[in-house]
Amino acid sequence: MAEKNFVKEIADMTEDFPQWYTDVVVKTQLVDYGPVKGTMVIRPYGYAIWENIQKELDARFKATGHMNAYFPLLIPESLLKKEAEHVEGFAPEVAVVTVAGGETLSEKLIIRPTSETIFCDMYSKWIQSYRDLPVKLNQWANVVRWEKTTRPFLRSSEFLWQEGHTVHATKEEAVEETLLMLNVYKEFAENVLAIPVLVGKKSDKEKFAGAESTYGMEAMMKDGKSLQAGTSHFFGDKFSRAYDIQFLDKDGTHKYAWQTSWGVSTRLIGALIMAHGDQRGLVLPPKVAPVQVIVLPIAAHKGGVNEKAREIIDALVAAGVRCQGDFSDQSAGWKFNQWEMKGVPLRLEVGPRDIENGVVTLARRDNFEKVTVKIDQLAEKVPALLDEIQSSMLEKARVFRDSRIKKAATVEEMKKYLDEGNFVVTKWCGCRECEEKVKELMQASSRIMPLAQTLDMGVCPICGKPAGTTMIWARAY
Amino acid sequence: MAEKNFVKEIADMTEDFPQWYTDVVVKTQLVDYGPVKGTMVIRPYGYAIWENIQKELDARFKATGHMNAYFPLLIPESLLKKEAEHVEGFAPEVAVVTVAGGETLSEKLIIRPTSETIFCDMYSKWIQSYRDLPVKLNQWANVVRWEKTTRPFLRSSEFLWQEGHTVHATKEEAVEETLLMLNVYKEFAENVLAIPVLVGKKSDKEKFAGAESTYGMEAMMKDGKSLQAGTSHFFGDKFSRAYDIQFLDKDGTHKYAWQTSWGVSTRLIGALIMAHGDQRGLVLPPKVAPVQVIVLPIAAHKGGVNEKAREIIDALVAAGVRCQGDFSDQSAGWKFNQWEMKGVPLRLEVGPRDIENGVVTLARRDNFEKVTVKIDQLAEKVPALLDEIQSSMLEKARVFRDSRIKKAATVEEMKKYLDEGNFVVTKWCGCRECEEKVKELMQASSRIMPLAQTLDMGVCPICGKPAGTTMIWARAY
Repeated sequence: MAEKNFVKEIADMTEDFPQWYTDVVVKTQLVDYGPVKGTMVIRPYGYAIWENIQKELDARFKATGHMNAYFPLLIPESLLKKEAEHVEGFAPEVAVVTVAGGETLSEKLIIRPTSETIFCDMYSKWIQSYRDLPVKLNQWANVVRWEKTTRPFLRSSEFLWQEGHTVHATKEEAVEETLLMLNVYKEFAENVLAIPVLVGKKSDKEKFAGAESTYGMEAMMKDGKSLQAGTSHFFGDKFSRAYDIQFLDKDGTHKYAWQTSWGVSTRLIGALIMAHGDQRGLVLPPKVAPVQVIVLPIAAHKGGVNEKAREIIDALVAAGVRCQGDFSDQSAGWKFNQWEMKGVPLRLEVGPRDIENGVVTLARRDNFEKVTVKIDQLAEKVPALLDEIQSSMLEKARVFRDSRIKKAATVEEMKKYLDEGNFVVTKWCGCRECEEKVKELMQASSRIMPLAQTLDMGVCPICGKPAGTTMIWARAY
Repeated sequence: MAEKNFVKEIADMTEDFPQWYTDVVVKTQLVDYGPVKGTMVIRPYGYAIWENIQKELDARFKATGHMNAYFPLLIPESLLKKEAEHVEGFAPEVAVVTVAGGETLSEKLIIRPTSETIFCDMYSKWIQSYRDLPVKLNQWANVVRWEKTTRPFLRSSEFLWQEGHTVHATKEEAVEETLLMLNVYKEFAENVLAIPVLVGKKSDKEKFAGAESTYGMEAMMKDGKSLQAGTSHFFGDKFSRAYDIQFLDKDGTHKYAWQTSWGVSTRLIGALIMAHGDQRGLVLPPKVAPVQVIVLPIAAHKGGVNEKAREIIDALVAAGVRCQGDFSDQSAGWKFNQWEMKGVPLRLEVGPRDIENGVVTLARRDNFEKVTVKIDQLAEKVPALLDEIQSSMLEKARVFRDSRIKKAATVEEMKKYLDEGNFVVTKWCGCRECEEKVKELMQASSRIMPLAQTLDMGVCPICGKPAGTTMIWARAY
């Protein structure tokens, strides 16, 4: 009966994955559609996940020597235009303010699609000497990109993100920073989101507009498609030349500075949903779950049940667990479905018999296993159980992902593996024409070149030329 | 010598208070001017204060049952127009997006100047039954208001703030919420910012556009002017009628819901500067200071000094103190000035003789007193000393404020007291004409009517009519 209700509420993920996604994000109240097309309202349950993500990432940024700042939302059009490739990449999707305070503006203002240009403008003013370097800033902000096709969290007109922007005295230091932040992201994705990621360098076609090179992390979703979950860019001195960021070095000469930027966004919530979700809805890793344990009183009309439930909640909260009770007058079946759909890692039922026996049953959301725990040992056992769920979810996602990475030597193999929902590994000649051909023939794109490339030569399956680079291809969000 | 350097760096606050403010915000690197007129870049030192404010307030919002969410930046023009008074108040200062994604939009989009309209639009969709109430949401966001005259933190085209928006089943509950949040703000201002505030109800002239009544807190700045530091609005059912927020009540009838909103902004940083600052620059209360203790090694070329300084920093950080060292090659005099200007609550000097004696000297920023502490007792004594500074700053600000509240019975007295930099208390008839006359004659405005009004009658000094209301007047930011 409960199962049947479920099937009615959300689409079957094996039959219609996009509809399953839409049902899950809306029905678990992570998000709703805003009044302007393509915008989203992040509801409390979704925003609490973002707050947990922010807290974990922010601590990592600070531990690696970064500080937060806040730069203006509105960028003068002329400022955006200074770096040619950058403006070419972003101009088509910007939102433009033309009127403010009742008057037509003499210069159009762009709502930031990203903030390189305005950071660089201030950096050129602030940075004079080698003593001023490095500058390692981050900001948590909203950005606007007017996309044609939008989906909550994955691609929306406005989204929330963090963007780090750093300036260094040497090229080596900037390259090191680019890779350091890529690794911070990878460690975070695996240990906090329980999502295994592939990291590496993007092709020139796929790199950030204006970057010298872009590194990214790619996560596999349950439909076998890839989601770009974060990027870290090395700019060389391209922006510092365009925005005149020069410093007087120790040797008495003026030099252009070296820069990086890196960012992740509310897209990570989409990644969480599609990497872990199942037929019943969300499955949230404990480290980001807004509610880690939901306590359901059973036969609550009987004396002492609600009291004991509240006692358990207090003990778990005191032990640092994000724990809530559902004392509403809904039926037990409705509550089971509801909290299961919302992906709460542990469900704890407490009824008269449990109280009598001094023992409760915990149901794991990730694998449906049931665990019996003495009530007076909950504060000790539950945190350990949450840790176990966290690692077990990562392991499960890793096994799934690894089973879906296939090596291909021909275009036919590539297409076949992609059709079956795999990532495909090939040798690649390095040219854009082959990437375009893959897009055309099989609607897939180059994702990343792994950092540790083997030196063995092979043949690019697309053009047949000898190729030394390994490339991972996938259909992507 | 150090003093002289100082005088050069920042204007004399007794001679030119506005210039003193500008010098302080820019030279301590709290803020810089953005490329678009009226916008500000909040630099790391300023943003760290905002992060501390956010952390303290957010914990209070959650403890009183609120949850965070995020609503879109862009509001369709038609949505803004639904509540007549509201649009009249905000329309003149909005920024308007007319082009996005390369196309002229069919409907103009407004960058939120505040978010009542878009919250209400979603609330009308989400709220159906009494079971859905109360809804108590908050968001941390940026807003844009195109002001003619701007000053960093006090009035800028874009600023950061939090806005709470709540919906209730009864009028009583909404009124209670309005006053609860006013008191949360007051407690926060006094215990965290060390700023004593006067709270009360605003006149109809000064209330928020669209509110039934507005409550505010007013803080006295060092020049005797008032700064509105936070507001809490009771909307009655005005917005719920305009946006159709109805719910099916327990009694089976449909009713309009009752609403509130409340907010504070980065303006609080301006309040901190002007309530506590002195001739040497910032004086920051320990609870929001980004650096609570600055450690300066003296004669650092001598063996063991830097090592001991680092040991002290580690011990204080381990004790939960925000502590940093200045190991730069600047002179001791420069460092003293610099960190004094930046308002760090405690300066700790450590040199060879201190190490020999096992004792260091701590200099208090708030009153310049010096305190000698044994090195091995620092981790215990410093937190206590920071608490003492915190309460002592509040007390000092309270004494200052109380000495500058004067009762006036005539227009001449009012003007005299205002000219001397006081708040003025009078009886008031309640009419807008008298407020306008005060504005015209003495450039002051009605601030708040204290919550606990005495019942005694008097005479309105402006029109001479009998009056039962007590009003506090001031020149204001």
